[in-house]
Amino acid sequence: MKKLSILLFGLILIVSCKQENKNSYNINSFSSEEKIDSTNIKQLFSSALTEGKSYEWLRDLTSNVGSRLSGSEGAAKSVIWGEKLMKEVGLDSVWLQPVMVPHWVRGDKEVANYTFNGQKINVPVCALGGSIATPSNGITGEIIEVKSVEEAENLGEKANGKIVFFNGRFDNTLINTFKAYGGCVGQRFAGAATVGKFGAKAVIVRSMTNGIDDYPHTGSMGYGDIPEEQYIPSAAISSRGAEILSAHLKENPKLKFYLKQSCKTLPDAPSFNVVGEIKGTENPDKIMVVGGHLDSWDLGDGAHDDGTGIVQSLEVAYLFKKNNIKPKNTLRIVFFMNEENGMRGANEYARLAKVNGELHIGALESDAGGHTPRGFSIDANDNNIHLLQSWKKLLKPYGLHDIVKGGSGADIGPLKDDHVTLVGYRPDSQRYFDYHHAASDTFDKVNKRELELGSASMASIVYLMDKYLYNQEVLKP
Amino acid sequence: MKKLSILLFGLILIVSCKQENKNSYNINSFSSEEKIDSTNIKQLFSSALTEGKSYEWLRDLTSNVGSRLSGSEGAAKSVIWGEKLMKEVGLDSVWLQPVMVPHWVRGDKEVANYTFNGQKINVPVCALGGSIATPSNGITGEIIEVKSVEEAENLGEKANGKIVFFNGRFDNTLINTFKAYGGCVGQRFAGAATVGKFGAKAVIVRSMTNGIDDYPHTGSMGYGDIPEEQYIPSAAISSRGAEILSAHLKENPKLKFYLKQSCKTLPDAPSFNVVGEIKGTENPDKIMVVGGHLDSWDLGDGAHDDGTGIVQSLEVAYLFKKNNIKPKNTLRIVFFMNEENGMRGANEYARLAKVNGELHIGALESDAGGHTPRGFSIDANDNNIHLLQSWKKLLKPYGLHDIVKGGSGADIGPLKDDHVTLVGYRPDSQRYFDYHHAASDTFDKVNKRELELGSASMASIVYLMDKYLYNQEVLKP
Repeated sequence: MKKLSILLFGLILIVSCKQENKNSYNINSFSSEEKIDSTNIKQLFSSALTEGKSYEWLRDLTSNVGSRLSGSEGAAKSVIWGEKLMKEVGLDSVWLQPVMVPHWVRGDKEVANYTFNGQKINVPVCALGGSIATPSNGITGEIIEVKSVEEAENLGEKANGKIVFFNGRFDNTLINTFKAYGGCVGQRFAGAATVGKFGAKAVIVRSMTNGIDDYPHTGSMGYGDIPEEQYIPSAAISSRGAEILSAHLKENPKLKFYLKQSCKTLPDAPSFNVVGEIKGTENPDKIMVVGGHLDSWDLGDGAHDDGTGIVQSLEVAYLFKKNNIKPKNTLRIVFFMNEENGMRGANEYARLAKVNGELHIGALESDAGGHTPRGFSIDANDNNIHLLQSWKKLLKPYGLHDIVKGGSGADIGPLKDDHVTLVGYRPDSQRYFDYHHAASDTFDKVNKRELELGSASMASIVYLMDKYLYNQEVLKP
Repeated sequence: MKKLSILLFGLILIVSCKQENKNSYNINSFSSEEKIDSTNIKQLFSSALTEGKSYEWLRDLTSNVGSRLSGSEGAAKSVIWGEKLMKEVGLDSVWLQPVMVPHWVRGDKEVANYTFNGQKINVPVCALGGSIATPSNGITGEIIEVKSVEEAENLGEKANGKIVFFNGRFDNTLINTFKAYGGCVGQRFAGAATVGKFGAKAVIVRSMTNGIDDYPHTGSMGYGDIPEEQYIPSAAISSRGAEILSAHLKENPKLKFYLKQSCKTLPDAPSFNVVGEIKGTENPDKIMVVGGHLDSWDLGDGAHDDGTGIVQSLEVAYLFKKNNIKPKNTLRIVFFMNEENGMRGANEYARLAKVNGELHIGALESDAGGHTPRGFSIDANDNNIHLLQSWKKLLKPYGLHDIVKGGSGADIGPLKDDHVTLVGYRPDSQRYFDYHHAASDTFDKVNKRELELGSASMASIVYLMDKYLYNQEVLKP
């Protein structure tokens, strides 16, 4: 046993020191201000990881409110949930910002199938958001498979009377999965408009995901400018369903595909952005926004999209209060409504900001999931991009290495202006599209520490932006 | 709809470009050699992400072999599994390296309970590896709670006749969870020896995990140098069980705790390291090792610990062959046996290397889980640490930012020598201790892309080490 014990003590030593320097950095190279900042950032992380609330808030939102598509009962409940929670956190003021939102409903569970070699194949599908229904007895037709909108554009008359199957796959060689999504999502959004004008009967679109699974992943689609009589039903098919259908089409190009869905768009419905703020101690008239979107798709519980962004945004304010950090500028938390299928909340927020002459100096959005932190992308003038990148040494001990120029977020995008610094929180993207817009986007997919590290990452950059952005020359209106 | 469609097209543009530059880097600043290297590394990643085998290999190992504690039937099956798979991948030669290993068996499911306020509380426990059994009718005793080995050392006679409850918690403020593990694991390993000498009846140790769950997490313990008559049973208690017990003890310090376990250590059993290699084209006598450990604990299926390291190590060789990269030095894949409770395989491998006068120039181990890549830690002379760190710009597009000095891995540790560069693959650590040594360490916890990115990360650094290490002056024996 002695030999064993020595060996194992050795093992323990290896384990305990094996990443010794992983998060270390040379604090001696810091200025006195930077030392203060690094101490405050460490405190924000320690606080989030030991007394954070985001995980239990998310459990509550996903289990007691659930899905919350614009115009739905869930969305209405989520507004009440958000207002109540902001008040509990003790923000100086909390209010609702009215906005009319699109109201699309899925209706009955969709049905799709075809017969292959005498066997009936049931296909996992779901209507895409914004799509029209099929006739009540469904649609049957032969299929033309394409891989992109460009390919579909060239179908012309060949699409007439057919069901067009968009089977473009994610490019899995792209390390950043959002780039793969960007390369495919056009077929989901514009597929129906592209072939509707050729007289196609319907479109089915491969789900937007890296892997092969049985979940149809929904998402927004639009009919662009084609006349309403050319509108056709549009549905997502699971990635495995798409692989199987594609293989079967090679053997039987004439197989008859059946699709039935009963979704429809109702008149716009009243809803709200939920807004709360902590008044700034030095520049109450200058505003820093932190937010995510409160609405979600109707499948799943909107856990990663964007429940995590909602609870992380509020946790930024919670961590400031808990650690007695008083923002110099007004810190405003915004739960935007209708990011998924209309952007009405985001546009209304920006419109009112302009009407009311509000001066926004910065905005941070979390809408890329609740996974382990990687960094931030910045949409700002060069001065401020360089300023934010100068904070790298303060942020990298927390795995925040990617402080890059790039887009920020859909909801804060309308605030874009040369003197506003827009930032998107960027967690690791590898797992995100496994659940994105699917029934699998549920609470159990979220890891407590990863979620809390995200809240602390956001609180840290907001702390630095609040301290250093407001007195930038470039911010003078 | 028009307005909606324009808004949504805008959204898509934001999404598709929102991380535009995240993985970009200025290739123009590269030397011609670096351009070749970056092209080859990109190819290794693309290959792993589109034609990798590691995920299906892991499914096979975890579902058809399952757990594989040294000396068990599962361990024996895993040796056959590993040898067969290495041959299928087409390594130049594959062989088994005999080694005698400890043979500890758990016996019947453990039982622990106590009565509190008239109610019987059943406690989730499991024997720690290497522990002795309780008497067949179990042990009952009062509990003393401590938070560390140091605190236990000071108990002295107070521990006599008591069950000592080690309830030291992970420090969740440490970003690197391995550091939190290193700060606690001493109580698991040395708890019994520490209080056995004071006449304690048994020890129960809080599970080594960041969160609060119902899984007892097992792991190795030892009795150090205390005489055998002082050996006492040692068991892990789930973190939630520990929280509840601690609360109940505050109300009733005299509560009687019952523990029953029937584990025992059998005579050492014959087993093997599984070894395979691709001969080097220029220096067949110089060896680069890539490996993980084949054995696992008996709870769960050893998916993250260390099934992922095993399949990733073999995938390095697979990716080299698939992409026609011929190593200049001999690339040797090693599936080490008995890392968990003896290190016998690792020590035997190093002993034979010495006896046979083999010249190892480097070794890479993956034994920190199969999560998204973060980097590598290096245990080498300063020249080689600087050399590996000079590759940062080639590796960071893949999220490999942490190229740091530190420990490497338990199995390659015995190869340490000034002219050998030891490297540990470092994936993200946040989720690792959720399943570590517990029944929850199963295949479903592993993400396909994260696993494959790890294989590619390992293949990339092995490619660079193979190309640039072998002709370092310092390597001349």
